[in-house]
Amino acid sequence: MKRIVILGGGFGGVYTALHLEKLLKKHKDSIEIILVNRENYFTYQPMLAEVVGGSIDILDSVTCLRSLLKHTSIYIRDVTEINIDKQTVSLSPNFSHKELTIKYDHLVLGLGTVTDFRTSPGGLAEHALPFKDLSDAVSLRNRIIDVIETAAQETDPVERRALLTFVVGGGGFSGVEVVAEINDLARKKVKAYKSIDPKEIRVILVHSKDRLVDKELSPSLGDYCGKLLQKRGIEVMFGSRLTSATPNEAIIDEKMRVKSKTVVSTVPSIANPLIEALDLEKEYGKVKCDSYLNALGKKNIWAIGDCAFIPVSPKKAGEYSPPTAQFATRQAPILAHNIKTSLLTGNKKTFTFKSLGQMAALGHKRAVAEILGIKLSGILAWFVWRFIYLMKIPGVSAKFRIALSWFLDMLIPTETVQLKSKPKKGFDNLHYADGDAIFHAGDTGDFLYIITKGKVDVIKNGEKITSLHEGEYFGEMALLSEKKRTATIKASGPCKILAIKKDDFNVLMTHFEDLKKNFERTEESRKKGSNRKAEGE
Amino acid sequence: MKRIVILGGGFGGVYTALHLEKLLKKHKDSIEIILVNRENYFTYQPMLAEVVGGSIDILDSVTCLRSLLKHTSIYIRDVTEINIDKQTVSLSPNFSHKELTIKYDHLVLGLGTVTDFRTSPGGLAEHALPFKDLSDAVSLRNRIIDVIETAAQETDPVERRALLTFVVGGGGFSGVEVVAEINDLARKKVKAYKSIDPKEIRVILVHSKDRLVDKELSPSLGDYCGKLLQKRGIEVMFGSRLTSATPNEAIIDEKMRVKSKTVVSTVPSIANPLIEALDLEKEYGKVKCDSYLNALGKKNIWAIGDCAFIPVSPKKAGEYSPPTAQFATRQAPILAHNIKTSLLTGNKKTFTFKSLGQMAALGHKRAVAEILGIKLSGILAWFVWRFIYLMKIPGVSAKFRIALSWFLDMLIPTETVQLKSKPKKGFDNLHYADGDAIFHAGDTGDFLYIITKGKVDVIKNGEKITSLHEGEYFGEMALLSEKKRTATIKASGPCKILAIKKDDFNVLMTHFEDLKKNFERTEESRKKGSNRKAEGE
Repeated sequence: MKRIVILGGGFGGVYTALHLEKLLKKHKDSIEIILVNRENYFTYQPMLAEVVGGSIDILDSVTCLRSLLKHTSIYIRDVTEINIDKQTVSLSPNFSHKELTIKYDHLVLGLGTVTDFRTSPGGLAEHALPFKDLSDAVSLRNRIIDVIETAAQETDPVERRALLTFVVGGGGFSGVEVVAEINDLARKKVKAYKSIDPKEIRVILVHSKDRLVDKELSPSLGDYCGKLLQKRGIEVMFGSRLTSATPNEAIIDEKMRVKSKTVVSTVPSIANPLIEALDLEKEYGKVKCDSYLNALGKKNIWAIGDCAFIPVSPKKAGEYSPPTAQFATRQAPILAHNIKTSLLTGNKKTFTFKSLGQMAALGHKRAVAEILGIKLSGILAWFVWRFIYLMKIPGVSAKFRIALSWFLDMLIPTETVQLKSKPKKGFDNLHYADGDAIFHAGDTGDFLYIITKGKVDVIKNGEKITSLHEGEYFGEMALLSEKKRTATIKASGPCKILAIKKDDFNVLMTHFEDLKKNFERTEESRKKGSNRKAEGE
Repeated sequence: MKRIVILGGGFGGVYTALHLEKLLKKHKDSIEIILVNRENYFTYQPMLAEVVGGSIDILDSVTCLRSLLKHTSIYIRDVTEINIDKQTVSLSPNFSHKELTIKYDHLVLGLGTVTDFRTSPGGLAEHALPFKDLSDAVSLRNRIIDVIETAAQETDPVERRALLTFVVGGGGFSGVEVVAEINDLARKKVKAYKSIDPKEIRVILVHSKDRLVDKELSPSLGDYCGKLLQKRGIEVMFGSRLTSATPNEAIIDEKMRVKSKTVVSTVPSIANPLIEALDLEKEYGKVKCDSYLNALGKKNIWAIGDCAFIPVSPKKAGEYSPPTAQFATRQAPILAHNIKTSLLTGNKKTFTFKSLGQMAALGHKRAVAEILGIKLSGILAWFVWRFIYLMKIPGVSAKFRIALSWFLDMLIPTETVQLKSKPKKGFDNLHYADGDAIFHAGDTGDFLYIITKGKVDVIKNGEKITSLHEGEYFGEMALLSEKKRTATIKASGPCKILAIKKDDFNVLMTHFEDLKKNFERTEESRKKGSNRKAEGE
């Protein structure tokens, strides 16, 4: 019995499994196919932005792996380790404390990329919303609904402004698609609120170049994108970068601060850390492959899609496949065929493919497309976009569900239900910029804070009374005695802070006697300090 | 300007607001209506079980409050305090640290009930899944999908059995409806798994009486329910109670242990703790009202629905409204009218209503109903159930969406997509029964444990080497040195344990020097102890 293990259920992994199932149909008693993925579904990326806007239902952009792949064993687990020497893959425990280790004869790496926040000076990892998978799309939609619901009752004009401002970093495909959907949703939703003037809504797209989708589309379509988004009320900031974020603002080019509670980052991605740890030849963190999609020098390890560095053709040295679904789905049949020949007989094939074109949806009935050299924009491109992506989504029932959702979206208004998850417990990592208030005197004491980097000023009655530094904590007074905050705390320079929820803090206090004493001592000494201060010492 | 504040967006609160909007249309410049709810949607309870089974979509059972109530201000917040003396209500902070306090002229209490775990000897609060709201229904559906996906690859027969066993406590309406949907979903889903024999699925309903839905329906219909569920493969345990649960089992009648990863409790509810704290006359924790729905002795406080104790008629002393949607929706117009007369002019009305009947759905095309004294069962009752509830759901677009989902459910198979939330951080409260293993030697060390009640035995090579007691912790060795567990830990008698995730524990260790030293000392002394043991001392 031979075993092929595919890691990752994106376009690369799923299409490889689909082709393997077909090619190895007669050999299913002697060759086993396993696919490992974190989720039990395949996400159809091109439709994710529509989930944010609500023109399709939450689950329309995904299909169960098990209904797509009838003859593949699906493991819904995280990959924790890949061991090339032992030819094993370890998977995270589920409902038990036991890891699962499986042996492979052939391994397919289709692990994709993760968002890269390493080049950011800080704050994006903590406060920018990512936009990569279904849960990101659902979270973003919920955030938009939440800020608008909250703004409807907010009387502080600064706070209102922050609640109703949306900032997206990156004007590539996904940035352009998501900003268009955010804009459509926010502007449609506020119509139901008498207390919000639609002019209060501000949507900003920050892009480092002077033209949108400059990498992917021709200049004229890039210009069209920019003009259309501006016409729809989006402010496009060219030649700028979203460099940082705090809980209350987006920071652009390291100096310009825009108050906002919804900052989305579509910044570049890097290959999965699991790939990084492997002893394989790599380029830009991706697995270097030959035209057979074989990892260099390893006959039973293959790579596909965004985590692989694959020549577009054996004849074109130095030109490599871009990280798009189009290329991954074209690599899959070659990869499947080559694994088959390795296990059975036959000649290997080489991968060679030329992009057919690109498309991006721009929200309400507009898109841009460049197909086989023909440029399209506006409502025609939008029809083409919908038609092509509907045809390409795998599975008949998925096609049907999406077509139906699109049809219904024209007939009945979408409900903006906010699906809240249960309150998060534990710790939050926060990032603040110089001068930001962590809290104000009089606020409810709901968190304890520990400074993990930088320093903060303690302000009482408008006067700075002391500074606190790395390793010191604050906010424990209101927690211990359940009062309101007695001082304002402001960041002095950029700083990173760990916040612990009141309830969890109380649990800690109950179980760690040392900790409790420690906090009580600190409170006592701080009280004395502020009394002396009050008495004029 | 007068202000009516309604707390709670269930049947009572929402229907009161709907009637007030109509009655006070001409006065909307002088009378403001506010409704406070935790979620931005109204949940149509009778449809929740169908969300579990998947015959309607996740969002079909809910409608946005804002689209139902056009002239009411909706506040999506938690109520933190009700102050009768000051006539104010305080609401939890959202996107800020500021609580919001609003004054009222009239207050409507429609806060419903919360699940009551006080009478359980332990474990149900920690490990039984509740079934009250949309997020419970979504969680339950995800759990069923998750255990089946995991069982498909599990080789340990005991673990498989636990994964494929489902236990529901309580054979009233909601217990019967939810067990039927769990059974349908589990049995339908395993058909896609070659590695699972459908006979491995076990679904158990535990009910304290000797007949199902004995409180709500006549004996013949109760018998029909029991027989139908048994025919569908559900084991019904009459005269028993679900008394406790651990992470791996359901405990019935305090002694019988059934291995299961999915325990659902539909046990009795108690009135909201916010009601408990109020200085009002109460009965069984509910606000005692006169027939005008006025809280006794308080002219501007009203109560409705499950948190209110309301006579069914002014003529029938000693007979009170049952906690059903039917009664709440009938109380609403009376309450709205009486508030109107209090603010303007007119005579108050008294509440008087006789139940029209009851219905319960029993999964796939079966139901029971008793309407105006007529008993129905089987497919006819199921049609009546669907028709009546479809007619009664508020909003045209909700009716349309549900009817469409039902129609599609017959045409295309439902996708069993498991919507995972991001991994939970922080602390988990666990309950174990005598002899349960918290972990085994060789397991992955993913949690640190603190004993908050009871004691545990430490077992190495089959031999008990020591016991640990309340306040002591264990599991830190594998965390500090990232090794596998070196010992097995078993509960000695029932015990309660606090589990802290490895990542969070590491965060704690980094920031609390004292704590780290403390743990290191413990580890050192334990190592010495076990070395001595190994050397035969």
